[in-house]
Amino acid sequence: MGEQAYVTYGSAKCGIDGASLDITGCRFSVAPMSDNFVEILTNAFTQVNTSKVWSATDALSSVYRGRACHVVDAVRAFFVAAENPTTHTTMEATFSKGCPGDSDADVYLAEDDTLVNDKFAAKHFPVIAKIALYPMGEPDYMPYIAAVVNRAIDLGIYDKSTHYNTYLAGDVQDLFDYVQWVCDYCGEQIHHYIFELTVSVHSPSLEA
Amino acid sequence: MGEQAYVTYGSAKCGIDGASLDITGCRFSVAPMSDNFVEILTNAFTQVNTSKVWSATDALSSVYRGRACHVVDAVRAFFVAAENPTTHTTMEATFSKGCPGDSDADVYLAEDDTLVNDKFAAKHFPVIAKIALYPMGEPDYMPYIAAVVNRAIDLGIYDKSTHYNTYLAGDVQDLFDYVQWVCDYCGEQIHHYIFELTVSVHSPSLEA
Repeated sequence: MGEQAYVTYGSAKCGIDGASLDITGCRFSVAPMSDNFVEILTNAFTQVNTSKVWSATDALSSVYRGRACHVVDAVRAFFVAAENPTTHTTMEATFSKGCPGDSDADVYLAEDDTLVNDKFAAKHFPVIAKIALYPMGEPDYMPYIAAVVNRAIDLGIYDKSTHYNTYLAGDVQDLFDYVQWVCDYCGEQIHHYIFELTVSVHSPSLEA
Repeated sequence: MGEQAYVTYGSAKCGIDGASLDITGCRFSVAPMSDNFVEILTNAFTQVNTSKVWSATDALSSVYRGRACHVVDAVRAFFVAAENPTTHTTMEATFSKGCPGDSDADVYLAEDDTLVNDKFAAKHFPVIAKIALYPMGEPDYMPYIAAVVNRAIDLGIYDKSTHYNTYLAGDVQDLFDYVQWVCDYCGEQIHHYIFELTVSVHSPSLEA
């Protein structure tokens, strides 16, 4: 790999989305802490309807790209499908839109808002989560972060503010409804944002 | 939780570190995909020498705060201590410095650079990783990201650029030496940065 050419996006124009299309994406990894993790993940993959997003998977993570509502719908479905009552499972997910290095490729933009994974929105279980919002290229970025945290407070899913993250706790559906709100809010208000989410279910630390 | 007061850091002054001390931190979560994950994590905790960082752990993650060299030393030690030849294990880690909402609290700043976990730097195994750098409050932030990616290219641990992340592959020690370089570079060059890292070892996807 020593002969690799340098990357060129140091010359990308910040403040201008590299893609002209309205593309929200999420890269995520799910970790079932079980000897059966391959089976659990494979089973989740087969259950999620990805017909309204572009998707790709490699050894480290999966990525969905499309309209925000369909991306959140598919990520929510994956986590709910991977949940298993006897398995401590975590998911880390990076939601983003507007990168100057992005392009109008690797995307599927569905024509309508009809969700294709809404059956997963009927399943309820408690989760804990941590979040962080990174509004890029904004000299005054803290008010956006405060707005997103205060929305969690309004919704009753805020737990605490701590170093580098805000902690949330609540029902899995309330959490993903909130993620949908964050993607909509940031997609409208911020040229380029990254929203980091880690969700945890069935942690033995909580049951101890 | 509905009576929770709003957070106030929307009024924090961006571009000014909320802490006056030179505090680097890392919040991380390790996921051993094994029925024995509690034992593996407990064992890793007892092996890491945290005498030169401030540390805290909850149900979702752990955080180390101190001088960059000691924070990286302790995070490297934790991942190496948690590695198990028969277990697919991942770690997500958020390195950061300079948040306007930070304060001179919850930190231990050691007086010297002598690493207390250097025995973990002698263990070698191949890993794959993904990284992302978020330089906050910088209107022209892409050149910093390119510099960090190009450093990985120089070191021969760059794999590919993909949506929302850069992928790396190489020896675990080369990876953490690189993380140390990134924290030093960003700590000097950027008022407030976040460096996201996900490391994976013993993935069956790679062995298949």
